[in-house]
Amino acid sequence: MAIDCKNSGAREDFPKDGPKPNYPEERSGWKGYVEWEKYPEKKADAAKVLANYKFPGPPEFQLQQVPLTNPLLEGVRWKQYHYAMGNTLTDQPDISWKYVQEEKSADMNHVLQFPYNGEPPRERLVETSLTNNKDHFVRNHGGIPEIERDAYYLEIDGLVNEPKNLTLADLQNEKLFPRQSNVVSLQCSGTRRIEQINEYPGDGDELINAPWGEGAIGTAKWTGVSLKKIIKHCGGLKDGGKGIHLEFYGADTYFKKGNVMNYVVSVPWRKVKLNEVLVAWEMNGEPLPRIHGFPLRTVVFGYIGARSCKWLYRIKAIKGPSQAPVQKKEYLYYTPQVGKQNAMYSNGFSIMEMPVSSAIMTPVTKEQIVHDGTISLTGWAYSGGGHWPERVEVSGDGGSVWYQVPDENLSKKYYHAWRTWTFDCPVDAEGWLEFCVRTWDNALNTQPTYVRSAWNFDLHVTSSCHRIKIYSINRSKPATAARLKQLEEKGLDILPITRPLEFDLESDEHYAEAMEAMGGRDPEE
Amino acid sequence: MAIDCKNSGAREDFPKDGPKPNYPEERSGWKGYVEWEKYPEKKADAAKVLANYKFPGPPEFQLQQVPLTNPLLEGVRWKQYHYAMGNTLTDQPDISWKYVQEEKSADMNHVLQFPYNGEPPRERLVETSLTNNKDHFVRNHGGIPEIERDAYYLEIDGLVNEPKNLTLADLQNEKLFPRQSNVVSLQCSGTRRIEQINEYPGDGDELINAPWGEGAIGTAKWTGVSLKKIIKHCGGLKDGGKGIHLEFYGADTYFKKGNVMNYVVSVPWRKVKLNEVLVAWEMNGEPLPRIHGFPLRTVVFGYIGARSCKWLYRIKAIKGPSQAPVQKKEYLYYTPQVGKQNAMYSNGFSIMEMPVSSAIMTPVTKEQIVHDGTISLTGWAYSGGGHWPERVEVSGDGGSVWYQVPDENLSKKYYHAWRTWTFDCPVDAEGWLEFCVRTWDNALNTQPTYVRSAWNFDLHVTSSCHRIKIYSINRSKPATAARLKQLEEKGLDILPITRPLEFDLESDEHYAEAMEAMGGRDPEE
Repeated sequence: MAIDCKNSGAREDFPKDGPKPNYPEERSGWKGYVEWEKYPEKKADAAKVLANYKFPGPPEFQLQQVPLTNPLLEGVRWKQYHYAMGNTLTDQPDISWKYVQEEKSADMNHVLQFPYNGEPPRERLVETSLTNNKDHFVRNHGGIPEIERDAYYLEIDGLVNEPKNLTLADLQNEKLFPRQSNVVSLQCSGTRRIEQINEYPGDGDELINAPWGEGAIGTAKWTGVSLKKIIKHCGGLKDGGKGIHLEFYGADTYFKKGNVMNYVVSVPWRKVKLNEVLVAWEMNGEPLPRIHGFPLRTVVFGYIGARSCKWLYRIKAIKGPSQAPVQKKEYLYYTPQVGKQNAMYSNGFSIMEMPVSSAIMTPVTKEQIVHDGTISLTGWAYSGGGHWPERVEVSGDGGSVWYQVPDENLSKKYYHAWRTWTFDCPVDAEGWLEFCVRTWDNALNTQPTYVRSAWNFDLHVTSSCHRIKIYSINRSKPATAARLKQLEEKGLDILPITRPLEFDLESDEHYAEAMEAMGGRDPEE
Repeated sequence: MAIDCKNSGAREDFPKDGPKPNYPEERSGWKGYVEWEKYPEKKADAAKVLANYKFPGPPEFQLQQVPLTNPLLEGVRWKQYHYAMGNTLTDQPDISWKYVQEEKSADMNHVLQFPYNGEPPRERLVETSLTNNKDHFVRNHGGIPEIERDAYYLEIDGLVNEPKNLTLADLQNEKLFPRQSNVVSLQCSGTRRIEQINEYPGDGDELINAPWGEGAIGTAKWTGVSLKKIIKHCGGLKDGGKGIHLEFYGADTYFKKGNVMNYVVSVPWRKVKLNEVLVAWEMNGEPLPRIHGFPLRTVVFGYIGARSCKWLYRIKAIKGPSQAPVQKKEYLYYTPQVGKQNAMYSNGFSIMEMPVSSAIMTPVTKEQIVHDGTISLTGWAYSGGGHWPERVEVSGDGGSVWYQVPDENLSKKYYHAWRTWTFDCPVDAEGWLEFCVRTWDNALNTQPTYVRSAWNFDLHVTSSCHRIKIYSINRSKPATAARLKQLEEKGLDILPITRPLEFDLESDEHYAEAMEAMGGRDPEE
């Protein structure tokens, strides 16, 4: 069951009586871009417009049930925020959805329609170690600005010695900047969030805490310029850069607790100095798709994806981390006793580097598998912050006995990318089995054991051992082979196991013999 | 969202071309009763009628999602079985539903509309240690025959020395039979099945394996005659009763793998001899409600509810357990490696006596509770086979630390009934907590730890420690008290926790102070 993009609430009810919005496009050739950060009075005015509406709350999919639709969730409120802003932003939900159709695979799992969040089908994600652009997950925070290549320029300002504007042509001029390409995995901190939701409901959040599966991770060869070189080109940082963050501004519009803003985040100069922050215009040898940030974005290696800012229009050097809400008030990691009753911004820590994690991508949970003593699995393993997966282990019994995935079954090592893997696991037992995977990175970090081990109220970073339930039907067992043969002879299937067997489980004669052998149902007097 | 009884598939499509059913009422004053067991040729004919239809499979609520409707499930196929049988049985789904309206509380949780399966609201079930008749769970296997009191008689035959027919007046004649009353809990082996389903899907079964909660148990004072006395009245059993079972025949119609039959089960003479099988016409001082078996049923103490046969019309003494499908082919308990691929009737054991089990009835899972350091719980504890709950223990941390429920918080002990309990549990921690309960009976039996510890393919007897997740908001914690005060001042509620807090979690000033105190987000160079 699909949700139609048009069914997005009462668009015709916007704008309302009261303050009339008028936020025209800032720059010619930058469609869908409103500059908020330079105009505090415009922000104040937009907040008044928002206050004029009663927007719907997040859908109650955590305490009740995650829907089985695609898209799973629509994002009605976020669409209405954009309608309320009028002219430049009203069409953003439709434009965004149009680019989903044009730039992403038709069979994406649309986790949230707007702002668009989507991940590819599980099995396909790990077929290649570089993710096809059409399959790379998308976690957008707003609409998709349509910026013309030739109209584009990047501002660099703040605590740099020589603030500059640079066009794409400047950045691509190899006489000014050496070109850099890296294979880098980006991962949303929401990857595998569905496991946390299924165990315990958490913060609904204003921008829905989307119920991601295991596919909010992807790997590409990104090409651009190291941000370090751009800073050098701007004469370096004031005070030698000590304690400085580089703040990234995205041309999309974001909303937080009644306020309107651009998407703004930051990373420390210390990270930039390692040539681990790329200002990129290419993804796997192609220009960035619009949905991935055309014409320019940052790619921050080994960090939460949220720092890799799309539709990047400004980089500002500042003292300490950004005070913008995405940085200061979101992507915080709480201890399990913190929640709506006591959460602050300062009692969660800010998620930057991503920890070691992994997932089984095939089979998928609740699959019922007929096999001959071996079940094949595929998956991915990743560790952020320049670490790499050194060892992947699979268990077929919930984490008691572990098998090492042979090194030759793992894809190539990179400092900043995942490794995909395959494994043929010996399976004797029948019935429901719990498979799980854990990864050890080169620093001997491994994963928490259970979802509860690392559950947190904002449902970020599900790094616990990934567990799936599969039903084993082992044809090497005589009773099972006999049953399968019976089914085949009658042209019936054993799947799904929840359909009762159409014929008698046992003949009366066999039953009588078995009862005789066990001395009947009742004991002797 | 309620399911209308009328939406029960294409009733007008029945009967079809092909063999025409004609199964008139057997006896005047016995509406809805067809005698099958005495007429093998009628059974064969009815099987041909059934074979003429393609009935729908069970709804796929196990691999997908249990619906949030009431009734949860409709039972379309079972209704259609009855439509297919024509005249006497066609109206049974409507008649059955009519008695639900008349005889049960309006707020029952209808787990399956037809055959009717329903349980009362959790909190009410444990308010009294004797269950109000309107609230007593119902697990029917077919429609409700409407038998007139004066037309009724009970046949006793088989291996008794003097087969007899007895009217209700005979049975109630205290010169013939001493009257016996006992407080007895009846429990469906499906109690708490939802927990097994939620962990692992199992057999869909022909008669849907209903997703019961914790309410498929109830306690009443039953009045009637001990079956032992009736057997004596019939001159006793042949051969002194050695190895004999008493087979009970119900006037409802049952279906199994394309065959049509009456509901037939048996219990051993050894059990009857203990005066633990009652032939009852009263439930809590009132005549049996029709939905509970009017005018006469068996009540088998400490056994699975399925042996307590409703609308009892015949008792036959036989050698060994009944070979009827309900006894031989259902209510079997399998080891977890047995399933659709290898299940037989002989490799499961027959569920008779019920084990020790218990449940927390309030709070319910996913509740979010504001408290001052203590959370109050209510529940029930039961053990079958003449055992009684000796000790109830509650844990607030998933089963590490256990608190004993004080004896004075448990209801009165009976040999064959549950004990209800209440407990005020000290709770310091905040966030999601796992509460669980376990009971020890007088024979020192206690419950398996996890659902997986005792999961079985037919999803019977969920006797593992009952676990609920509750979200603790402890007002005795200063940060929580402050947040609750803020909410109160703004006229807002903290519930549900999945709704984001409407205002900022923290002032900019407080955040700045906290950051200063922790030396900022980033470490020193």
